[in-house]
Amino acid sequence: MQAERLHYEDFTPGRRFELGPRTVSAEEIIEFAKEFDPQPMHLSEEAGRASILGGLSASGWHTSSLFMRMMIDSYVGATASEGAPGIDAMQWRKPVLSRDTLSGHSTVEATRPMRSRPGLGIVTFGHELFNQRGELVLSARNSIMVRQRNPEKASA
Amino acid sequence: MQAERLHYEDFTPGRRFELGPRTVSAEEIIEFAKEFDPQPMHLSEEAGRASILGGLSASGWHTSSLFMRMMIDSYVGATASEGAPGIDAMQWRKPVLSRDTLSGHSTVEATRPMRSRPGLGIVTFGHELFNQRGELVLSARNSIMVRQRNPEKASA
Repeated sequence: MQAERLHYEDFTPGRRFELGPRTVSAEEIIEFAKEFDPQPMHLSEEAGRASILGGLSASGWHTSSLFMRMMIDSYVGATASEGAPGIDAMQWRKPVLSRDTLSGHSTVEATRPMRSRPGLGIVTFGHELFNQRGELVLSARNSIMVRQRNPEKASA
Repeated sequence: MQAERLHYEDFTPGRRFELGPRTVSAEEIIEFAKEFDPQPMHLSEEAGRASILGGLSASGWHTSSLFMRMMIDSYVGATASEGAPGIDAMQWRKPVLSRDTLSGHSTVEATRPMRSRPGLGIVTFGHELFNQRGELVLSARNSIMVRQRNPEKASA
């Protein structure tokens, strides 16, 4: 198994990984919001309609967490990853409403070996998620640390 | 109640809101990871120790979601907020390990009325969370849309 995993060398710029589809239910929107983001527009259809979002809508952090899970199921789960140092940018461009279906892609933008951690490389991705109407709902850019299959001789 | 809520005018640059404390359990780290980020270092102490994180550690998305909840409990829950368009930047600077206790603050960096949505203003915050050893674990910058108490005459 280990040998089949994706390593740093497999993430060539331009390579694209499909994400989703994933349908979001009202129940999970409310469940997440109760724990992490209990604002009215994330807790009831009625309050969502009264907000600028237009209906019961997922917390941006919920959408982001679902997006993480979609990346896991697409390629991160099969990658020799050592995690991520953060998010360069994350835009929630349209509300994610209950029963929306999300899909999209991650595209490798750049790669570089990590000087501070020999044997690891940084892979930078651009990400986009769309709803079933083709509207862009999330765009993001981030980097993950990935083990090299054949570590370069690094000047540590 | 409505009249007592924090509005755009209350977010003066430099104003600071305390966050936490919030202790993170192994159980909740694993529960979140199973749903959204099932990578080994977020699922078991053993795999965490074998990773560069040094122990069972929260998914960055979990830390971010806990941070959201800490903001809700500190000030967002008492704010006439219309949500956020995204995150300008989010850095997970140190692992959040099980039984770590997080606390920190949000500081108003800038405010401006929204031309595209009269009656709303944008409030930009800088955020920092520390663990019980005083180490910075999360830093972030984001903006939220807040209703004005006394809407300006806007040129829409």
